[in-house]
Amino acid sequence: MSTARLTIDLDALVANWRALDSLTRVETGAVVKANGYGLDSGQVGRALAMAGVRNFFVAVAEEGAILRRALGPGPQISVFSGHCDGDTALIRDNDLTPMLNSVDQMLRHVEALPGAAFGIQLDSGMNRLGMEPAEWAALRDIALSQNPVLIMSHLACADEPAHPMNAQQLSVFKEMTDGLSVPRSLAATGGTLLGPEYHFDLCRPGVGLYGGMPFEDALAVVQLDLPVIQIRDLQPGETVGYSNTWTAQRPSRIATVSAGYADGLIRALGATAVTFAGDEVCPIVGRVSMDLITVDVTDLDHDPSFLTLLNDRQTVDDLADAAGTIGYEILTSLGARYQRRYKG
Amino acid sequence: MSTARLTIDLDALVANWRALDSLTRVETGAVVKANGYGLDSGQVGRALAMAGVRNFFVAVAEEGAILRRALGPGPQISVFSGHCDGDTALIRDNDLTPMLNSVDQMLRHVEALPGAAFGIQLDSGMNRLGMEPAEWAALRDIALSQNPVLIMSHLACADEPAHPMNAQQLSVFKEMTDGLSVPRSLAATGGTLLGPEYHFDLCRPGVGLYGGMPFEDALAVVQLDLPVIQIRDLQPGETVGYSNTWTAQRPSRIATVSAGYADGLIRALGATAVTFAGDEVCPIVGRVSMDLITVDVTDLDHDPSFLTLLNDRQTVDDLADAAGTIGYEILTSLGARYQRRYKG
Repeated sequence: MSTARLTIDLDALVANWRALDSLTRVETGAVVKANGYGLDSGQVGRALAMAGVRNFFVAVAEEGAILRRALGPGPQISVFSGHCDGDTALIRDNDLTPMLNSVDQMLRHVEALPGAAFGIQLDSGMNRLGMEPAEWAALRDIALSQNPVLIMSHLACADEPAHPMNAQQLSVFKEMTDGLSVPRSLAATGGTLLGPEYHFDLCRPGVGLYGGMPFEDALAVVQLDLPVIQIRDLQPGETVGYSNTWTAQRPSRIATVSAGYADGLIRALGATAVTFAGDEVCPIVGRVSMDLITVDVTDLDHDPSFLTLLNDRQTVDDLADAAGTIGYEILTSLGARYQRRYKG
Repeated sequence: MSTARLTIDLDALVANWRALDSLTRVETGAVVKANGYGLDSGQVGRALAMAGVRNFFVAVAEEGAILRRALGPGPQISVFSGHCDGDTALIRDNDLTPMLNSVDQMLRHVEALPGAAFGIQLDSGMNRLGMEPAEWAALRDIALSQNPVLIMSHLACADEPAHPMNAQQLSVFKEMTDGLSVPRSLAATGGTLLGPEYHFDLCRPGVGLYGGMPFEDALAVVQLDLPVIQIRDLQPGETVGYSNTWTAQRPSRIATVSAGYADGLIRALGATAVTFAGDEVCPIVGRVSMDLITVDVTDLDHDPSFLTLLNDRQTVDDLADAAGTIGYEILTSLGARYQRRYKG
């Protein structure tokens, strides 16, 4: 057995959802796009549905179909990309709720599936998805006559609470939607933490559920244990790994573990990330390669059989800092070769 | 349909194998670890087996089992991580050939599966996998009496032909193996290109088969087409995407395509990578987000329905340069949400 083990703590996930839910007086949904941020949308979705989540969000209709099979009928599954060309059968057969992003999508939806549920996604300034203010002004009366179930938008800078873009998008969103009798949603995790002004009728946290920033109080959801497949002694001056980037400065003991960038352990993290043998810290040395990582275990008094890369001491955000990215990318990159174990 | 389409050209893959094979007078195998460098080890393995490959290499026994199901009996499947604790049934049931890395692995193998095929992996200086010279000297007579089918090692700096480490590892490998009557292998893609001294009895290219450097003459194997799900007009001064990192300097037309870092499009590539609409170049603007990328299509005379991110003009290595990594990582990160189409 030389594949690494990824343990996903569904109890921690549910606790994170409850903690975010307790910060608001409104309904709290859950974003489970990108296969539940890499942790399996079916496992994640079922655990959250048991805890009371009734509103789920995915990126594309194909993901919605997979989630519907896992959840069964009942919970609302909303699709951020809306109703794209070719999506009609998936939306109809899986009772998905597209968040319509444009006049084109609105026409496609009401022509193909008259009477079927939908929401509206507005662009309040991120310029990525959603209807522009002018487009919305032209379409609004027609759209409202079709009874949308939700009007939403997305914040570009919610991870930076002091960024002036937050108040600006809030203001635009309110201008576009005040006075309408349709439920509204603006906040993902970051927006939920910005406070009640941003909550409207539904918050829809994503990354915070999975233990990621900007939700500082999040419990760690993932633990990643890498099996040691070989340990060797080095003399000072010997080098390790591709391009000889690490040289032993003292007599050293180097463990080779079975996992690499093909398992989503981003190649760039090699320079500063560490692993853990119980409570003891063992630094990664040399380059992360496709299937293997080398670790300095010189200071241990024993030869470990596993080294832990992700836990509550080194979270997805810590690993992201080491790799020059964000916790979201660490999560969604977690690879296909792991043995996955779900707790809870 | 808002998922991207990944086209894998198996004819180009086979042409790359033939081109590398033609550079040597010895047998040429194929490395298909990490699920065939992300392209599906079964599809890749069957195409190469049809072309005449008889020796395949994977990273771990679990991958070997998957490949054996795809290939059926016959071709040799060698496992770089050797015979790890818990691997015995996988090795036996799938007729895998572990490359034994240590005395521990040798003992495990001959005790658990006496008479079963194996190879030996030697460490010639990379200090990652394989037996050290001293360990090999102690074990060598016993190991040879068990009839290994291959003795191999791996180069740390073969992508840099002028690096002195290449000649040093060659010398160590020869010292450890000269005079033995067992087939030897030292060269992956980089070593194959270093010349006949490095070829011994078997070359085992990996990344070059898939269109990656250091094999400069490789044909591109992957094409990635991203569906446009929305296009909008921006005024000068408007910003795009997370943290407002891009600001329109002129009246601009911005396309949002459905793919992001959750699909393996490394977040760091946003700054300099481009997309193609036919022959025309359209730069990525703003941050790559989890499921979406924004592209400046202002200079096109039409609205594209797809934008191409990987093709023969922007290869996995070009995209890697944009992301500050190597083509290998671009390949192995290609995500699970793509519709995959195999040509050839």
